[in-house]
Amino acid sequence: MILHGYFRSSAAWRIRIALGLKGLEAQHVSHHLRKGEQRSDAYLKLNPQGLVPALETDDGAVLTQSLAIIEYLDTLKAEPRLIPADPIEAAKVRSFALAIACEIHPLQNLRVLKKLGAMGHDEAAVQGWAREVIADGLAALEIVASAEKGPFCFGDAPTLADICLVPQLGNARRFGVDLSAYPRLMAAEAACQALDAFAAATPDRQPDAE
Amino acid sequence: MILHGYFRSSAAWRIRIALGLKGLEAQHVSHHLRKGEQRSDAYLKLNPQGLVPALETDDGAVLTQSLAIIEYLDTLKAEPRLIPADPIEAAKVRSFALAIACEIHPLQNLRVLKKLGAMGHDEAAVQGWAREVIADGLAALEIVASAEKGPFCFGDAPTLADICLVPQLGNARRFGVDLSAYPRLMAAEAACQALDAFAAATPDRQPDAE
Repeated sequence: MILHGYFRSSAAWRIRIALGLKGLEAQHVSHHLRKGEQRSDAYLKLNPQGLVPALETDDGAVLTQSLAIIEYLDTLKAEPRLIPADPIEAAKVRSFALAIACEIHPLQNLRVLKKLGAMGHDEAAVQGWAREVIADGLAALEIVASAEKGPFCFGDAPTLADICLVPQLGNARRFGVDLSAYPRLMAAEAACQALDAFAAATPDRQPDAE
Repeated sequence: MILHGYFRSSAAWRIRIALGLKGLEAQHVSHHLRKGEQRSDAYLKLNPQGLVPALETDDGAVLTQSLAIIEYLDTLKAEPRLIPADPIEAAKVRSFALAIACEIHPLQNLRVLKKLGAMGHDEAAVQGWAREVIADGLAALEIVASAEKGPFCFGDAPTLADICLVPQLGNARRFGVDLSAYPRLMAAEAACQALDAFAAATPDRQPDAE
């Protein structure tokens, strides 16, 4: 398999964690987002959305959108399950992941921050927007996770929820969000960081890191 | 089951379509988004994210995030499948749905448009932002769908992809996006509109419609 990504992309980071947890290998190809390489003609042929990540499977299929790719990876090997077998538990895990992927991340990614800049907002205002979006989203997830057993977001093993949480907390730090208000989420992150799959997936450990 | 929604919420609209396609019944409870009823203490106890939809199951579980809810509904009855059984096909359908749920809808929903207004942008600028986000997203999806057999987004039956597409096209019209550039998506929408489940789910047919 070939993973098209970028060291700092949270969505690609999610895939790196999932590959590690499942014990799957992929060749990594980097596309420099700040230089706009994901909008090149060659890459747009692969993924018309012009986004990383994209996963080329061994059969030559090109899969896009990180959560769809992780659902696919979860079918390649039975264990460990990234999405629980029980439908209600699965819904809770997916909901947590989607609350990050739909409500937080899209509002603080490079594309939106660039749009805000182009609309005349200075760097401080743009960073403030990102901090507010992240803090609001994490506050709701702190309540959700606090109702669940730890140490991970949902019990004693990492799931798709943790896979989305850890990169989002990485972004939170990058924007200077005060994380002391989210002890339950921080505890889940600490449990994740003790695992090789999470440790090896951080942006600073990627070959394209700057 | 109880569906907490709002006639104009695209995410609740997705659930209404899914319920119809699966032949499932739910009691509908409306929360007026423009009046902020989804941020009431009582509703926040149900869903700390303060968003509709939420689905209360017969067992009393509260499920949130529309795509997670639809994955759950898809497990309640085997047919018709909203997400294909084949993992690659499933990934393609989920990716299409996520491209709407993560890349388009969050950037044009009421919350973001209100934030832009509060930052001093006038109504014309805010509507322009929404139109641009929607047009960019639909352009990529037009390419994706054009590579697939019709009449629906993925073949001869509606899936999660169509369930997300139809409300997004509804929003596109509300913001005045020129849809003539997306003939493949319009054809999928037309195929959907011929089905009772889609026809009965439109905002104007809901009891809380204004």
